[in-house]
Amino acid sequence: MNILVINCGSSSLKYQLINMEDESVMAIGLAERIGIEGSVVKHQTTGKDKVTIEQPMNDHKDALKIVLDSIVNEEYGAIKDMKEISAVGHRVVHGGEKFTTSVVITPEVKKGIEDCVELAPLHNPANLIGINACQEILPGVPMVGVFDTAFHQTMPKSSYLYGLPYELYEKYGVRRYGFHGTSHKYVSKRAADILGKNVEDLKIITCHLGNGASIAAVDGGVCKDTSMGFTPLEGLIMGTRCGDMDPAIVPFIMEKEGLDSNGLSTLMNKKSGVLGMTGISSDFRDIEGAASEGNEKAIVAIDAYCKRVKKYIGSYMAEMGGVDVVLFTAGIGENSISMREQICEGLEGLGMKIDKEKNNVRGKDTVISTEDSQVKLLIVPTNEELMIARDTLELVK
Amino acid sequence: MNILVINCGSSSLKYQLINMEDESVMAIGLAERIGIEGSVVKHQTTGKDKVTIEQPMNDHKDALKIVLDSIVNEEYGAIKDMKEISAVGHRVVHGGEKFTTSVVITPEVKKGIEDCVELAPLHNPANLIGINACQEILPGVPMVGVFDTAFHQTMPKSSYLYGLPYELYEKYGVRRYGFHGTSHKYVSKRAADILGKNVEDLKIITCHLGNGASIAAVDGGVCKDTSMGFTPLEGLIMGTRCGDMDPAIVPFIMEKEGLDSNGLSTLMNKKSGVLGMTGISSDFRDIEGAASEGNEKAIVAIDAYCKRVKKYIGSYMAEMGGVDVVLFTAGIGENSISMREQICEGLEGLGMKIDKEKNNVRGKDTVISTEDSQVKLLIVPTNEELMIARDTLELVK
Repeated sequence: MNILVINCGSSSLKYQLINMEDESVMAIGLAERIGIEGSVVKHQTTGKDKVTIEQPMNDHKDALKIVLDSIVNEEYGAIKDMKEISAVGHRVVHGGEKFTTSVVITPEVKKGIEDCVELAPLHNPANLIGINACQEILPGVPMVGVFDTAFHQTMPKSSYLYGLPYELYEKYGVRRYGFHGTSHKYVSKRAADILGKNVEDLKIITCHLGNGASIAAVDGGVCKDTSMGFTPLEGLIMGTRCGDMDPAIVPFIMEKEGLDSNGLSTLMNKKSGVLGMTGISSDFRDIEGAASEGNEKAIVAIDAYCKRVKKYIGSYMAEMGGVDVVLFTAGIGENSISMREQICEGLEGLGMKIDKEKNNVRGKDTVISTEDSQVKLLIVPTNEELMIARDTLELVK
Repeated sequence: MNILVINCGSSSLKYQLINMEDESVMAIGLAERIGIEGSVVKHQTTGKDKVTIEQPMNDHKDALKIVLDSIVNEEYGAIKDMKEISAVGHRVVHGGEKFTTSVVITPEVKKGIEDCVELAPLHNPANLIGINACQEILPGVPMVGVFDTAFHQTMPKSSYLYGLPYELYEKYGVRRYGFHGTSHKYVSKRAADILGKNVEDLKIITCHLGNGASIAAVDGGVCKDTSMGFTPLEGLIMGTRCGDMDPAIVPFIMEKEGLDSNGLSTLMNKKSGVLGMTGISSDFRDIEGAASEGNEKAIVAIDAYCKRVKKYIGSYMAEMGGVDVVLFTAGIGENSISMREQICEGLEGLGMKIDKEKNNVRGKDTVISTEDSQVKLLIVPTNEELMIARDTLELVK
């Protein structure tokens, strides 16, 4: 059974075709600049050459047609006929309080995703466009929606309510939702597998450290808390996002800089994080490079970044009353040897001992704690597409 | 040597006269509604009856005259002559980055306090008014400024910088300052004394839980981090303040509710916290009462409050690489048996075991952890006035 996984942005469409017999990737690709001049699809079938198709695409439907043509192309395709696609799994960013698990897409589900547009005005509309395009081109193929927020819907009210007037929760749904849920779910389960344990028996802190970054407290396979909140801005310092800060700074800056709420959102989401702190780059590899050359702002940004991760690890350890596993995933989590080391530095007293030699590895499942470390430290590469495909398989089976 | 401690608000003036031979309070009082109809001074000399003086007071100078008259009053006063006041210690809210310790007030110092007005527009002007009034009425008496922010000035840059563009720090001083410093300093030192240890040898987490609330990580007597930030809004859930939240909520609410930055500040500072969460009261005793009667919002508010304290304890434990002492002070910290218990619940795995019987006490120095608790848990009543008087004594000696 082959499942197509679709992740639509406002002008992009990422996809993977996965063979669920062995969970192997049959084809992978990306349509970019949809509706903009210079539209392009980059496609690669496993074992074949990468192809680039430059062709005008007015909308996601145009893009999807080219993607599907590529997938079944005689020369560089992966399958012979679209009928070999048994189901489509769609990544949907915001499921609000409506969606606590993945669901088969029905008209009611589409209405539900639309109801959450206000909470994710940039993402949910693109996700809906992708679903509609797929339904038109692949009529009769079952579709599943997999939500970034769903895994976090098990948080108790005391974790997801802010210290704000209760009416704001009732009227506008202002609360913590959390994001990257598909990743946190995947890696927490995967960590249990690696350790040969049941996820139900483990307290796990999952550190998803990419350009966007979040941490979750996963107790017995169930999310109890996470660092991203009402939006993906809260929590850790990220590439261009500020993460946690005194909310009183917001009106202060708006007044000082003469910004409206849009300008302020841009500042906090696009111009902050390590980019804003250093003026160098939003890419942590550049920041690490500058730090190693002695750039003071870069050194402080890395220190502040690692300290905040460290503090979240401590806070979730307290919240769960202990921790068995701390794992690192996503770009920085999987690949930055020095940042993993710096995050774990000084946590020996909390039962976490990193083995510097074992830690000297990138991007593969590895236990990086010492033999006598009370808490297991792990690298677990994330795979959101596979998780989406698995959920899709389970629901259409 | 007698020291007068003054704490001026915009329409109030609190004072204590302290005999530094034995650190005893000779007189204590409060002028209220200064410049407003119904001005009143409530004064009490230790061992004498409380008196209430209702009299118009146009400004802080008027109020201070009545206060001093009361202090030297033949019938209900504490001393015979104003000359018996050797020095005055002034609480000043914001010392910015200028003041890292208490200082003798000079024209330059007053200029420095004025430079910080932008950072504390409600508080510093009132503090300056109090200083000027005292200097006029008590010419030649040495005055000392004791800053709420000073104790936290030892934080490293990686603790006090936000993930914001560096220019905002340079242009406007946007950074974490921290408040309640006088209290955190006093109770951390006092905890060491109670335990018969040197504060230099201890890692202490000080939980100042009053109507305003903050936590600090004090390592070797030096502040490494604290929960309040650029303003006293950040951090814990408080009586009427929201504390930590996704900063992206600010522009969202402004737009939805049609609020300007002032309206938003009022919402976050005066209408949030447990008051906003429950609609009941900003007083935790009322919330606890409602919770015990089964009010669901009150139960959630207390759960959320305690969880956030717990998480800060964990995060500072991680930041310091361990902790020797966790202490509770201020209104709730000293008096709420049930909230101390709830905060410590589940922290056994982090080495913190509360002794429920020992914890059954209010408002006095007490070790409330079990004998075998790795971390000492303490109640330490705070005394900011005494700390101000001590700093004043030290500087004028």
